[in-house]
Amino acid sequence: MLICISSNKLQQEIQTKPEAHLFEEILYCNIGNPQSLGQQPITFFREVLALFDHPSILDKSETQGLISADSIERAWQILDQIPGRATGAYSHSQGIKGLRDNIAAGIEDREGFPADPNDIFLTDGASPAVHMMMQLLIRSEKDGILCPIPLYPLYSASIALHGGALVPCYLDEATGWGLKVSELRKQLETARSKGITVRALLVINPGNPTGQVLAEENQKAIVEFCKQEGLVLLADEVYQENVYVPGRKFHSFKKVSRSMGYDEKDISLVSFQSVSKGYYGECGKRGGYMEVTVFSADVREQIYKVASVNLCSNIFGQILASLVMSPPRVGDESYESHNAERDGILSSLARRAKTLKDAFNKLEGVTCNKAEGAMYLFPRICQPEKAIKVAEATKTAPDAFYCRHLLTATGIVFVPGSGFGQVS
Amino acid sequence: MLICISSNKLQQEIQTKPEAHLFEEILYCNIGNPQSLGQQPITFFREVLALFDHPSILDKSETQGLISADSIERAWQILDQIPGRATGAYSHSQGIKGLRDNIAAGIEDREGFPADPNDIFLTDGASPAVHMMMQLLIRSEKDGILCPIPLYPLYSASIALHGGALVPCYLDEATGWGLKVSELRKQLETARSKGITVRALLVINPGNPTGQVLAEENQKAIVEFCKQEGLVLLADEVYQENVYVPGRKFHSFKKVSRSMGYDEKDISLVSFQSVSKGYYGECGKRGGYMEVTVFSADVREQIYKVASVNLCSNIFGQILASLVMSPPRVGDESYESHNAERDGILSSLARRAKTLKDAFNKLEGVTCNKAEGAMYLFPRICQPEKAIKVAEATKTAPDAFYCRHLLTATGIVFVPGSGFGQVS
Repeated sequence: MLICISSNKLQQEIQTKPEAHLFEEILYCNIGNPQSLGQQPITFFREVLALFDHPSILDKSETQGLISADSIERAWQILDQIPGRATGAYSHSQGIKGLRDNIAAGIEDREGFPADPNDIFLTDGASPAVHMMMQLLIRSEKDGILCPIPLYPLYSASIALHGGALVPCYLDEATGWGLKVSELRKQLETARSKGITVRALLVINPGNPTGQVLAEENQKAIVEFCKQEGLVLLADEVYQENVYVPGRKFHSFKKVSRSMGYDEKDISLVSFQSVSKGYYGECGKRGGYMEVTVFSADVREQIYKVASVNLCSNIFGQILASLVMSPPRVGDESYESHNAERDGILSSLARRAKTLKDAFNKLEGVTCNKAEGAMYLFPRICQPEKAIKVAEATKTAPDAFYCRHLLTATGIVFVPGSGFGQVS
Repeated sequence: MLICISSNKLQQEIQTKPEAHLFEEILYCNIGNPQSLGQQPITFFREVLALFDHPSILDKSETQGLISADSIERAWQILDQIPGRATGAYSHSQGIKGLRDNIAAGIEDREGFPADPNDIFLTDGASPAVHMMMQLLIRSEKDGILCPIPLYPLYSASIALHGGALVPCYLDEATGWGLKVSELRKQLETARSKGITVRALLVINPGNPTGQVLAEENQKAIVEFCKQEGLVLLADEVYQENVYVPGRKFHSFKKVSRSMGYDEKDISLVSFQSVSKGYYGECGKRGGYMEVTVFSADVREQIYKVASVNLCSNIFGQILASLVMSPPRVGDESYESHNAERDGILSSLARRAKTLKDAFNKLEGVTCNKAEGAMYLFPRICQPEKAIKVAEATKTAPDAFYCRHLLTATGIVFVPGSGFGQVS
């Protein structure tokens, strides 16, 4: 947060007093915000959204010269899914039913297990979905959520805001940020011995900020652990398209648990997805959904109640969330070009992840695991004794001290690892 | 909430078993959602949004045949206000600076008093802004918010979610839902005698659900009261364009307090605005802002922190919020047609408000105040003794019983007044 405020200030200074700094721009490497770093939006998605925005151009002849035929067809389909074609109305608080149908069909196609549109809750990005679940899970400071450390700060902030206890489970840097069930069990027992009721386990896969992609066997062990201990499994799967190494593949926790023969009677599962990540990177659209497979109808009704407090999520985000789960198909005019855009972005992300990791590992005193997925690297930086002493003298964590200096000297924004709860 | 769930169920039944009911559609009169009832979107706003969605058509010749010149020019302007023209990036958590500049300029133009873009927080509709303020104001169940009754349920839900106390202040139906300072003072003292720290007064003007437009003298008395008692004034001003009677005019509480010579050192003021109401009625876009004029920089920093937990509000909502505060000007190609669309919608709303009020007052046992503004009527319905007894026997509030029967017999969705906390 401090780094963000400093970089905002610096950004203003560069505009008002460009001569005061040695660099001309701020490079924001502190957040997965790809379009701010030059990534182009995906044409098909933007065409459909533009048509939906202003449907009166849908049947104009000029439009056919501007927009591909399948985008026009898709916009008509979506328009027909909206009650009364009212493109500017509040929707059902869970999201437009037809769009949830598309998403459920997309999940089913991919996984081969049934998905129910009534289990889908469309949200303004994944963050509000996370807050909703925390609000429902946390009753008092005695309720805990088991979380991997280092941890994306959204989760620590949300648990704190809702007054719960964050139960840490340390990822093992030496084995590529593995999540060991033995560590999970140890931390669960420690928490219980302190009188904490652990209600859920959060897993971020591919990992944020650590970039690992879990092996299927590891996922099975995690599912088994949650089933045995009666924990809700919160699966942050927003980087599901961002896998960069040949040996790894994304498997949703729902698919893994269904393939083990478990259904919603055996394990309560919430999966988060977002339009902000993947190859789309549409952060500003604020679209996403959660798929909630739980046995109790009561729980779903409570989630619906909480969702309805903000009326509905934005319709554009809803449409985009359905489009990323139902991209152009073979035979569609956009099919080839869409895939080319997608592959271009994903291979560029993979290339940059490797280049940066290699560069880090060439620096003196720096080591860095590879990013198997997601959008982040989490290097370990050994600082000289003197630097650590100066940092401590100013009551700053050494890594925050390093990041502060990196920012003022180069304009590059890093987030200190201590901000993710990592040990130094 | 029960009525909403019943009407959703009924909607599904109509589709699957149309012969089971005497009506063919559900008429949702329970919510201000004008486009769901056939109101058309405003062309200028939609043109700009569509171009922004898909900027690569901005300089195509076909586009000039489809979209008016000033919409194209405006889209370029907005594009240039976005850092790096990155239309799909997260923005500053407070919203894009250039858009906040437009909004502040719009407020200044209208009111003749300065507005600061740093006081503007762009949000996904007004609801999240309300939640943010409640989160910041309520520390425990001993903190209270003084609210007018009948009250839009968003507020009671938000206060309950954040664990605070709702301190009721009853509007006077007999005098057209007036908000009397004597009643405010009485309720404030009662709350204080119970150990409640009242932190803020909420005023909804024009009123939701009661449709009154406050007289300027009344507003001055309210400002004076808040200043004396050290209360934050939360001004829900989302119906600022919806004023239907010649004798009334909307004055923002900020303008009123500045005209009294008070600035942010004298009174802390938060004003909420939304793209969902007015003549635009763009509910599904989820756009809005709050203008926070408080003396303490700390408070603004805390609001910024809370806003940043969800990263940013959706960019389309942000753009639309800036457009409604800076519509086409004299000389712009869209100026005449935009005003014609606006006036058509507002006069239709006014006509329907009057027609419905007259119809209510012709019914036996029904009386209804006129709607001076907003989008709602709040009739008083005297039910026969027998109906009340049947309702009580089924443990249902008599008005909820009435609404339930109205729904199943006609498909019209009303909200019972008891849902707004009104006395029977």
